[in-house]
Amino acid sequence: MIKAGITGGDSTAAGHLIRILINHPDVEIVWVEAPFEEGELIARHHRGLTGETYMSFCAKGNPEEVNVIFLCNSEDGDSERYMRHTPIPEGVKVIDLSPDFRSPEDEESPWVYAVPELNRKPLVRGAVRASIPGPLAHIMLLALLPLAKNLLLNAPIHVNMVTPSSPERPGEVSVVLEHEEIGEAQRALQVLQSSCSAPIHLTGIAGGWNRGLACTVYMDTPISEDDIKDMYDEYYEDHGFTFLSESFPDLGGVRGTNKCLLHVQKTGQKVVVSAVLDDSMKGSASVAVHVMNLLFGLQERVGLTLAATADD
Amino acid sequence: MIKAGITGGDSTAAGHLIRILINHPDVEIVWVEAPFEEGELIARHHRGLTGETYMSFCAKGNPEEVNVIFLCNSEDGDSERYMRHTPIPEGVKVIDLSPDFRSPEDEESPWVYAVPELNRKPLVRGAVRASIPGPLAHIMLLALLPLAKNLLLNAPIHVNMVTPSSPERPGEVSVVLEHEEIGEAQRALQVLQSSCSAPIHLTGIAGGWNRGLACTVYMDTPISEDDIKDMYDEYYEDHGFTFLSESFPDLGGVRGTNKCLLHVQKTGQKVVVSAVLDDSMKGSASVAVHVMNLLFGLQERVGLTLAATADD
Amino acid sequence: MIKAGITGGDSTAAGHLIRILINHPDVEIVWVEAPFEEGELIARHHRGLTGETYMSFCAKGNPEEVNVIFLCNSEDGDSERYMRHTPIPEGVKVIDLSPDFRSPEDEESPWVYAVPELNRKPLVRGAVRASIPGPLAHIMLLALLPLAKNLLLNAPIHVNMVTPSSPERPGEVSVVLEHEEIGEAQRALQVLQSSCSAPIHLTGIAGGWNRGLACTVYMDTPISEDDIKDMYDEYYEDHGFTFLSESFPDLGGVRGTNKCLLHVQKTGQKVVVSAVLDDSMKGSASVAVHVMNLLFGLQERVGLTLAATADD
Amino acid sequence: MIKAGITGGDSTAAGHLIRILINHPDVEIVWVEAPFEEGELIARHHRGLTGETYMSFCAKGNPEEVNVIFLCNSEDGDSERYMRHTPIPEGVKVIDLSPDFRSPEDEESPWVYAVPELNRKPLVRGAVRASIPGPLAHIMLLALLPLAKNLLLNAPIHVNMVTPSSPERPGEVSVVLEHEEIGEAQRALQVLQSSCSAPIHLTGIAGGWNRGLACTVYMDTPISEDDIKDMYDEYYEDHGFTFLSESFPDLGGVRGTNKCLLHVQKTGQKVVVSAVLDDSMKGSASVAVHVMNLLFGLQERVGLTLAATADD
Repeated sequence: MIKAGITGGDSTAAGHLIRILINHPDVEIVWVEAPFEEGELIARHHRGLTGETYMSFCAKGNPEEVNVIFLCNSEDGDSERYMRHTPIPEGVKVIDLSPDFRSPEDEESPWVYAVPELNRKPLVRGAVRASIPGPLAHIMLLALLPLAKNLLLNAPIHVNMVTPSSPERPGEVSVVLEHEEIGEAQRALQVLQSSCSAPIHLTGIAGGWNRGLACTVYMDTPISEDDIKDMYDEYYEDHGFTFLSESFPDLGGVRGTNKCLLHVQKTGQKVVVSAVLDDSMKGSASVAVHVMNLLFGLQERVGLTLAATADD
Repeated sequence: MIKAGITGGDSTAAGHLIRILINHPDVEIVWVEAPFEEGELIARHHRGLTGETYMSFCAKGNPEEVNVIFLCNSEDGDSERYMRHTPIPEGVKVIDLSPDFRSPEDEESPWVYAVPELNRKPLVRGAVRASIPGPLAHIMLLALLPLAKNLLLNAPIHVNMVTPSSPERPGEVSVVLEHEEIGEAQRALQVLQSSCSAPIHLTGIAGGWNRGLACTVYMDTPISEDDIKDMYDEYYEDHGFTFLSESFPDLGGVRGTNKCLLHVQKTGQKVVVSAVLDDSMKGSASVAVHVMNLLFGLQERVGLTLAATADD
Repeated sequence: MIKAGITGGDSTAAGHLIRILINHPDVEIVWVEAPFEEGELIARHHRGLTGETYMSFCAKGNPEEVNVIFLCNSEDGDSERYMRHTPIPEGVKVIDLSPDFRSPEDEESPWVYAVPELNRKPLVRGAVRASIPGPLAHIMLLALLPLAKNLLLNAPIHVNMVTPSSPERPGEVSVVLEHEEIGEAQRALQVLQSSCSAPIHLTGIAGGWNRGLACTVYMDTPISEDDIKDMYDEYYEDHGFTFLSESFPDLGGVRGTNKCLLHVQKTGQKVVVSAVLDDSMKGSASVAVHVMNLLFGLQERVGLTLAATADD
Repeated sequence: MIKAGITGGDSTAAGHLIRILINHPDVEIVWVEAPFEEGELIARHHRGLTGETYMSFCAKGNPEEVNVIFLCNSEDGDSERYMRHTPIPEGVKVIDLSPDFRSPEDEESPWVYAVPELNRKPLVRGAVRASIPGPLAHIMLLALLPLAKNLLLNAPIHVNMVTPSSPERPGEVSVVLEHEEIGEAQRALQVLQSSCSAPIHLTGIAGGWNRGLACTVYMDTPISEDDIKDMYDEYYEDHGFTFLSESFPDLGGVRGTNKCLLHVQKTGQKVVVSAVLDDSMKGSASVAVHVMNLLFGLQERVGLTLAATADD
């Protein structure tokens, strides 16, 4: 039984993570830190957990009691401070959901950049620190990794991202044009294709939904549609959560799951890749559990056969 | 391993059911009937199943090959016709999701009225036929069973139901005043309180969401709030999916799960019970799996630790 | 030209009101108070007004410059304080959107309880103070006034209200059972039927939409459906914004308008009245303009031929 | 008084159009054709019109009785057939909402391509036939016309369009890559900049809302942000429905109106233009009324001071 501790337990990401871990057959949650809610029932704060757990938040969890710590603090810098001030016993693994240790380009860093479809080897071979990618970088990478692997990122890349709306302003079209996760994705792609210097042009618009990322990427390429599809099939063949779909993917098909659905087509000179994932799952909590499974040598799907809504 | 067959495999209910059964550790799906889609990949029809299954629909499944058959035909009368025309080997269990065999009042019927919170005993003691309740009847029953058990249904009962909208007319306020499931609930309540002749006044309005039932029931009663809460606590103590909540329940807390959340309060002379459940899960597919677990002597929560969205 | 001033100009109600008044052929807005946003462009705060006005908020408007003041302060007590501290020249009319002066039962109060369908006469005959009803009270009244007028409120009244969700918790089912507007409606009904002592049982649930009230009211009555429909037809014959509908009314049919749609039917002993209105229009800003039209002797529909969305 | 006839009266576009014309001070609707609903009350079909009109549909309207005919048939080819088979008296104007007569490039065609911001002159100078642009072409044009006017469309143009979902599949991400309205927009732009041969790369994703188009366009350009903003200000200065916004535009700010809001910025070498409009209004019914105002020499805003929702 893997004993787990969670910091930032009152964050949304922690709420999703706790729910997954409660139902994971090989995990026992030992403590959940939330200093400002010490003593409060977790299920009273994360109301979706009613009936699932009777644990309460604690102020400070003891790293000696656990095998893995999930850092879910939502402020930038919190994870870095936690690591600086907290003595972590050797062998205790740490999975960080914040941006603090994301360094895809630094192969010497103890923090493995934890995209399982890119870095499964270091994750299963003894890593003790894993940094979960940002959700925008993650979906861009899943859309582009097979092209980078085949050294095909040789033209400007255009990314059209539709993100969740903020609940306060459901109809607002706030356009994102610059984002730190563009650089994160770019550096990760260069690990596969060091020559890749193609700029990424991102436009992001808030869609009218409250969960889910939908992303369309296109670039010019001379390669044929069939060849490209073969590359994607081959690249993702061994990966249990990323699938090619013959029809356009649907947010309803990934909501609540750790899945990413991809669709590839060629139109004129352009290859167009569409991708969908649930930013609070594959983009955050469930990928953290996926990474934990890899770090501890479990089958990667354990505890992650989550509810896709069949028809929503 | 329980071998399962499914009829009406192209229905929405079947889509949810297949997804749950695929991830159920003790079940193997042997066939899924959908005569008009014979040979079609199930995951192409139920797109949320992409990556979960590579089975195809068949025209006619063989009852000899399975231990349990789920009848998911969506037209009234289909299940009755299926049972009339299909020889079912002795010992093969049948779980019907249609209204065809719902007879809560008939204790001689081979078809157990499959509300686990009401009829768990007959379900676990050798039943081979189970009829899943209608979702409106089901939520009314979960809100009222403890009162019936304590013979307290002695005044008119007012039920205010908010149902999903039809996707075609999201803002329409179609008011329901008469519904066959009122009688269904009434007959089931009389099993516990034979004297119960209180009329049920139902008004139902389509809310602006696409999944979930929210129900508020009230009636006059002289009993105190504390005593009533104790009755609910005691009644649901042994049941793994129905919970009392201290705050008003939230559809987000049950979406995608087999849970029902209840809230009980007294205001003036009235007891007011609020209930929420996901009509496509606890109201349909997941309760069918719950009932299967009981029929086969499994622990009732197996395969049903489904994703509640922690904060949505 | 009627010169208008508005307090609480940064409130949502003021935003709707400004938009209506800008397009009203007989009104000129002279000032809009919003002390904390003094000097800010109104259209920058109320973004729907982009292109409609280039006015800015002021800190304090001068009552001497206007013929009518709309009080849109959103805190209870603000209107009362405004009236206490601000010298209002004789003849300047005041329309209050807050609860501060709602006293439907007090026929001596200078503040007319401004439900046009109930109090049109005092409004057109020289009133200078008008208090806009609460939206829940307003919709209950529109559903019940013809019954009160005919002295038929002689049994308990059950009201099932579906309200907008708060944007922060879209799926939350927060049930309302007690509300000050129940008493407000009750006192207003007693003006028509002094013998009316029937209790009003309200259950309110937040629906999944962000605008609109849907209300179903029922009570026992011996009167026939046809007779009741005749009473409603007669009562609302002269009123330009409240209509009987033969089918169940639809929020889409009133959104953005000053309309209330009613549907009346008898089921068993019960008369069931369904009503829909847009709480930010007929429940607030547009009814204030309707009342202004009456106070100034204009045709009641001027400036209020607002967009119903034909099919949404 | 302009006498108007409408064909295809049971279409959604006709529903919106009727509602606007009913409240237009200079228009009288004489007939509304809907052969399959002959005799049916219009307000029973278009339920948002309850209380607004007591007219019924007719099978065939007489062109001799009207001054203008709006063609709202929703099938391609219907308008062309109507014009071929129906004798239209000289001087009766026809406004077509279908694609049948859209030929922006053909300056000899009797059908003026009716983007008021592009072709106001021919519209006000005696045109008798007007073809309403497609909504996708329309929003692309409003985003690009000032650049074309200044001969600046000299690099590939990338268009990221978020469209309404189909009500049946609210979460579906159906990606559009090729669309006849790309060519329509391209030909219209060449009227201003004949040298414009820049390709338009469109990706369209269905967003989570049921009304509204949000569009982001970008292209490389050496011109500075200030100079570009000046061009937009100058181009739209005389146009009463298209506005530059300093913040990112919001669908809530245009819903139900004839407005288009634009935002312009420069990021790196790229100019990025964001635009929002309501596809059923500025993209269809209200622009048809706008065009009618121009054809008949009315002030362009008459009857179109429609409800923007101030804060939704």
